[in-house]
Amino acid sequence: MTIEELVAAARNGSTRAAGRLLSLVESTRRDEVLAVVGNHPVRVIGITGPPGAGKSTTIAMLVSAYRGQGKRVAVLAVDPSSPYSGGALLGDRIRMAAHINDSDVLIRSVATRGHLGGLAEGVPAAIHVLAALRYDVILIETVGVGQSEIEIAAVADPAVVVLNPGAGDAIQAAKAGLLEVADIVAINKADRDGADQTVRDLHAETDAPILKIVAARNEGIAELIEAIDVHLRADSPERRAARARAQVLSLAQSALRAHPGLDGLAAEVAEGRLDVYAATKSLLNDAGLAAEIR
Amino acid sequence: MTIEELVAAARNGSTRAAGRLLSLVESTRRDEVLAVVGNHPVRVIGITGPPGAGKSTTIAMLVSAYRGQGKRVAVLAVDPSSPYSGGALLGDRIRMAAHINDSDVLIRSVATRGHLGGLAEGVPAAIHVLAALRYDVILIETVGVGQSEIEIAAVADPAVVVLNPGAGDAIQAAKAGLLEVADIVAINKADRDGADQTVRDLHAETDAPILKIVAARNEGIAELIEAIDVHLRADSPERRAARARAQVLSLAQSALRAHPGLDGLAAEVAEGRLDVYAATKSLLNDAGLAAEIR
Repeated sequence: MTIEELVAAARNGSTRAAGRLLSLVESTRRDEVLAVVGNHPVRVIGITGPPGAGKSTTIAMLVSAYRGQGKRVAVLAVDPSSPYSGGALLGDRIRMAAHINDSDVLIRSVATRGHLGGLAEGVPAAIHVLAALRYDVILIETVGVGQSEIEIAAVADPAVVVLNPGAGDAIQAAKAGLLEVADIVAINKADRDGADQTVRDLHAETDAPILKIVAARNEGIAELIEAIDVHLRADSPERRAARARAQVLSLAQSALRAHPGLDGLAAEVAEGRLDVYAATKSLLNDAGLAAEIR
Repeated sequence: MTIEELVAAARNGSTRAAGRLLSLVESTRRDEVLAVVGNHPVRVIGITGPPGAGKSTTIAMLVSAYRGQGKRVAVLAVDPSSPYSGGALLGDRIRMAAHINDSDVLIRSVATRGHLGGLAEGVPAAIHVLAALRYDVILIETVGVGQSEIEIAAVADPAVVVLNPGAGDAIQAAKAGLLEVADIVAINKADRDGADQTVRDLHAETDAPILKIVAARNEGIAELIEAIDVHLRADSPERRAARARAQVLSLAQSALRAHPGLDGLAAEVAEGRLDVYAATKSLLNDAGLAAEIR
């Protein structure tokens, strides 16, 4: 099938065709696919937080809520330990199972090959494909350690940070830079001791709205959806341009970090055979001239 | 004077010539200067931490200690609020005053024009010049908020993070990513209440050695110097290559963020007229082809 035929089949409900398109944009044929699918507006909601915070459970409940509104929903899991990509807890699999046979829900893990910081290269392209296939909402899950805050901030609006009661999660979130990118903080498992204290502690660290939820019992999910809607209504051309800027810089950083010439240039600098400015120029030039950014 | 003459004069003790060379490497004549000065090994010690932690006082005491060993010392202040660049506390000025007429101590603030994250572009060049002028130790001061952790990690070894007793500094340091880059943590003003608790809290967050100092009374400075020496003795070609790699990536990021074409590309992406991959490629290509990285 041609790309046009795949798009038509996917729009007619073929999840197989949709999956094929999502694979193609991670291949050398990305540009062809992007040229066909074009550019459609779509809601992209980021869900991040430390391992075990309940991101997947929260996502399952959001999927149910959006399906209840008649919306088509796609889930992209960048987190390599996500239940959708294999490293599952049984409970998460069972919760998501409700959606597995729903043709208006697509769940996909994103390849993170060469993912050394910065935006996983396949993510913006996958968003373009899903927007073209008329998904109304895209939920992106990243694990909130290391570099994922850059990723979420670059593509998602709002970025929802899921934490648990207790000082540990709040400190980890601060360390990982998550609070800086949080548009909304959801304290999950808020029936546990210390939730109110955690809310107070976090109010000192972020201006974002802080909600208490118990995702496993579907408590607070309606309020979370409302907070997301409030945030989306405030979107503006300036915010869209800022996200585009962050995406470009983050993809550029990914490309530079993964560049095969970097280690050789660094060795030359370390040995005193090349100055760091010449090395930087060489790296940028080479990366720009490369046939593809990936 | 030619650059060769300036280097000769600076080596003969002209601080004016040294200052002129340090200005030239921040100008369009950077490459000329670098070609003349060449590449000499030098110790670069980073001092970072939140505002008010006592970085400048600690640096003043380190300068005294290294001068006591007969070493020539240069201080580069990237921190725009540093006493050397004008935003001083009177006490800091007085402490540094002891060194102002010492021709074996050079104090210099580094221009941070266009410094939007990543490595301040003048820093590696200034290090090359100071190494050629036979300074034995270069102390770099950056303020530990935002992006300076990248800077310190890229050029300094070891990176010394200066904090005060109490939970506030530790949380701020964690948020700013400082603990990740800390090779040594110095708890300054350690005669205050809570210093031991802060040491215990930080041991949970970092494997770096944690020292208690009272810089204003010169307490713990000998132990800090010893910890720096221990760290330096463990240097290796691998660590040098890793620092060079971080410098190249950080300079590249600085160049990309400051690129005049970025905002236009971001606007085109936001308006759907350009895809983010094409925008990234265009940015990289243009930055690489630009005549200079600055």
